[in-house]
Amino acid sequence: MLDLARRVHNHNFGIDPIVRSLLDTDFYKLLMAQTILRRHRDVAVTFGINNRTTRIRIADEVDAGALREQLDHARSLRLSRGEATWLRGNAFYGRRRILSADFIAWFEGFQLPEYHLEARDGQYELTFHGPWVETTMWEVPALAILNELRSRAVLRNLGKLDLQVLYARAMTRVWEKIERLRKLPDLSIADFGTRRRHGFLWQDWCVQAMDEGLGSKRFLGTSNCLIALRREVEAVGTNAHELPMVYAALAEDDAALARAPYDVLRDWQEDYEGNLLVVLPDTYGTTGFLAGAPNWLTDWTGIRIDSKDPIAGGEEAIAFWRSRGADPREKLAIFSDGLDIDTIERIHAHFHGRLRIGYGWGTLLTNDFRGLVPDGRLDPVSIVCKVTHADGRPTVKISDNPTKAQGPADAIARYKRVFGVGEQDAMAVVV
Amino acid sequence: MLDLARRVHNHNFGIDPIVRSLLDTDFYKLLMAQTILRRHRDVAVTFGINNRTTRIRIADEVDAGALREQLDHARSLRLSRGEATWLRGNAFYGRRRILSADFIAWFEGFQLPEYHLEARDGQYELTFHGPWVETTMWEVPALAILNELRSRAVLRNLGKLDLQVLYARAMTRVWEKIERLRKLPDLSIADFGTRRRHGFLWQDWCVQAMDEGLGSKRFLGTSNCLIALRREVEAVGTNAHELPMVYAALAEDDAALARAPYDVLRDWQEDYEGNLLVVLPDTYGTTGFLAGAPNWLTDWTGIRIDSKDPIAGGEEAIAFWRSRGADPREKLAIFSDGLDIDTIERIHAHFHGRLRIGYGWGTLLTNDFRGLVPDGRLDPVSIVCKVTHADGRPTVKISDNPTKAQGPADAIARYKRVFGVGEQDAMAVVV
Repeated sequence: MLDLARRVHNHNFGIDPIVRSLLDTDFYKLLMAQTILRRHRDVAVTFGINNRTTRIRIADEVDAGALREQLDHARSLRLSRGEATWLRGNAFYGRRRILSADFIAWFEGFQLPEYHLEARDGQYELTFHGPWVETTMWEVPALAILNELRSRAVLRNLGKLDLQVLYARAMTRVWEKIERLRKLPDLSIADFGTRRRHGFLWQDWCVQAMDEGLGSKRFLGTSNCLIALRREVEAVGTNAHELPMVYAALAEDDAALARAPYDVLRDWQEDYEGNLLVVLPDTYGTTGFLAGAPNWLTDWTGIRIDSKDPIAGGEEAIAFWRSRGADPREKLAIFSDGLDIDTIERIHAHFHGRLRIGYGWGTLLTNDFRGLVPDGRLDPVSIVCKVTHADGRPTVKISDNPTKAQGPADAIARYKRVFGVGEQDAMAVVV
Repeated sequence: MLDLARRVHNHNFGIDPIVRSLLDTDFYKLLMAQTILRRHRDVAVTFGINNRTTRIRIADEVDAGALREQLDHARSLRLSRGEATWLRGNAFYGRRRILSADFIAWFEGFQLPEYHLEARDGQYELTFHGPWVETTMWEVPALAILNELRSRAVLRNLGKLDLQVLYARAMTRVWEKIERLRKLPDLSIADFGTRRRHGFLWQDWCVQAMDEGLGSKRFLGTSNCLIALRREVEAVGTNAHELPMVYAALAEDDAALARAPYDVLRDWQEDYEGNLLVVLPDTYGTTGFLAGAPNWLTDWTGIRIDSKDPIAGGEEAIAFWRSRGADPREKLAIFSDGLDIDTIERIHAHFHGRLRIGYGWGTLLTNDFRGLVPDGRLDPVSIVCKVTHADGRPTVKISDNPTKAQGPADAIARYKRVFGVGEQDAMAVVV
C-alpha cells in the first residue's frame, strides 16, 4: 500500500523549495507593480534586506548555500497558465479586470531578476538592483525564504514527536486567538502574514483556520495570491511605503519633494478605486501629511495606520476626517502594525462604533512560535526588504516611529525639514 | 503521485475496526488468564458492562449495529504468528517465559466467545457468558470498542480543521502534563489507559509522548500488549478484582469466603514473582484485608491503591508495613485510581522518600478531551466490565468507595459482615 513513486521522488528532491509560485506573494505587490509598469517603467531601484532585530545573527543561523539554492529556485519560476487565468478571471474586491491585459502579459514573461548576496557581521546583505517593476517583486519571496530557512534550521534538530507537539501547541495558540476574535462585534480582519511567516504550509493552515473559525463575513481574506487562489478566499491588499519613497527620491527639489506623497495618491486613484483607496500616510510623518492633504483625499475610503501607536493614530484619523467635514463612521481605518490578539482587542474596544475598522494581521498570525523552543529560536525577527535607492539617489523613510526610520542622516534631516517632522516617540518594534 | 491502491482499498472498507489484534488488550489479562487456565479452567462466569455515569445514555450515542460490527470483528481475530513469537520470546519485567508454552498454545487457538447485546433505558446490556478464561478476555476490547465508538459518534460531525484543532489541543494538554511530570523526582509511571481510551491511535500517540518525554527510566511502559510490541516499550500490569471476586463467589461457607482474598494471592505467588507480587487489597475493604493478612504477604513487593483516597490509602500501607516490621521505603505503592496530573503531584509531594511510588495512569492520560467539544460530549465516562456471576452465584465487590460497590444487596450485607466492613466514605467517581 506504500506509494513507492512518491517515496522515490522525495528521495531525489534536490531541495524542498520554499517559494514554488510567482503568485506566492502579496497581492499589493501586483497592484503596485501594475502602477509602476504603467508610469515608471524606466526607473531603476535597489531593494535590500534589513534585519532590525540585530541581536539575531541570521547569517549564522541560515546557511548561505541553502539560501542561494532557494533564491535560484525562485528565479526559475514563471507564471503558469492556470495562474494567469486566475489573475485574468478572478474578481478582486468585487471587481474583475483590476489587473490589465498589459500587466498580465508582462507578468507572464516575468522572471525574478538577479540578486547580490554576501554575509557581513552575522547578517546577510541581500540586494536586488534593476528596473523597479522587477526588483519590487523580490520583496516578499526574499523575506519568506529567509524566514522559512530560519525556521527550518531549528526544526531540523527536532524529533518527530517534538514536531507534533510544536505544531499542536502553535495550532492551539492560533485557535485560541481566533476564539477571542469571534467575540469582537463587526470584526473585519485579513491575513497579511506572507513575508514573515513560519513557513508556507503554516500560513496556509492559518488562513484555513481563520476562514473556518471566523467565516467569510469576518475573515476578509489573505494578502497571499497563491493561497487565495487555492483556498478560494479573497486576495486583499493596499499599497506600501515604496511608492512615496521612490516618488520622493525622484523629486527634483524641495517643492517637488513636499508634493511627492500626494502625487503617489493622485496616480493611485487614477488606477484604482473603492477599497483600494486606502491612504498610507506615515512615510514622512502622519501629522504633517494629514495637515497638508488636498481635499480630494477626504473622499478616499480609509487610512492605514502602520507605525504610530494605534490608539493615537486612530484618533488622529478621526480628527482629520472631522476637520474635513467627513463622518468617521463611514471611513475605514486599517490597522496593520505588529498586531496580536491583545492589541486587536484593545483597538476594538477603543474604536468600535466610531470608525469602520479593518485589521491586517501579519507576523503574529503566521509566525507566533514564541517560547515554543528553547532560547526563543523560533521567535520572529523584524526583518524587512526596502527600496534603498531610486535612479541612484538614496530613499528615505521617516514614519511615525523613529525606530523604523531609514536613509542617510543628511537626507533624513532634509526630509524632516521639508515635511515639518518634529520630535517623535520611539516605540519598540516587535515584529 | 496518488496512492490509488490505498484510496480504492479505503473506499471499500466495510468498517474501520477498532480492535485489530487480540494483543490490543492489557497485559494483566494475560497474566490472569494464565492463572485461570491453570487453576480454574472449568469455572463458568458472566461478565457485563456497567456504565456508572448513568446520565450519559450510551445506547443513544452509539449505534447498536456499529457496535455489533465491531464486536463481531473482534471475534474474527486470532493471535498471529508474530504475536505469538513476541509472547514467547519477549522478557516481561526482565524475565522470559513468564507466559508458559501451554498458555500461549491455548491463546493461539483462542477466539473471543459470543456476546449478548441489548439496549435498555439508554444503556447497553452487553454480557459475556462462558468459561472464565474466555470471557475474561472480553473486558478490555469490549470497553475500548464502546469508548471509541462514543468518540467516533462525536468526531463524525467535525470538519477537518475542527479535528486538527481538537487533536492539537489534546496533544498540547498531554504534553503539558508530561512537562509537569518531568519535574517529579524519582518518577515511575506507566500507561494503564487501554480500556477507556479515546481511540487506539490516540493511546498509541500518548505512549510515544510519554516515552519520548520521560524516557525509559521514568516511563515504565504500557499495559497495552500490542503497543508494547510495536513501540518496543515494556508491557506492564498486575492483577484485578475479578480474581478475589470469583474466588469469593465460589467459597462454600463464611470461613472459606473470609479466606478467599488470601487464597488468590497464595495461588498468584506460586505463578509469579518480583514486581508482579503487588497486592490489590481493596476488593472487600483494605483495612480488614490488611488486618487479617498472613505474614507472608509482608514479603510481597507492594500494594496497589485503587479505590481509597490515595493519601489515606498510602498512609494505611505504610502503617501496615511498619506494623509487620518492614521498611516502607523498600516497598512499592502503585496508585491507579482516577489519576490526573494534579493528583499525581499531590501524591508525590506527600509520599516521595517515604515509599517507592508507581503510577498506573489510565483514563485521564488516554482520554482527556474534557471541554474540547460542546456539552462535554468527549468527556470520559466511568464505564466498567465486571464479572457478575461465577458458577451461577453473584459476585460481590465492596471496595473502599461505596460508589464502586457491586452485587445484590443481601450478598453485599453478608460480605460486609464476613469482612468486618464498617462505615465507608463515598467519593465521587471521576473515571
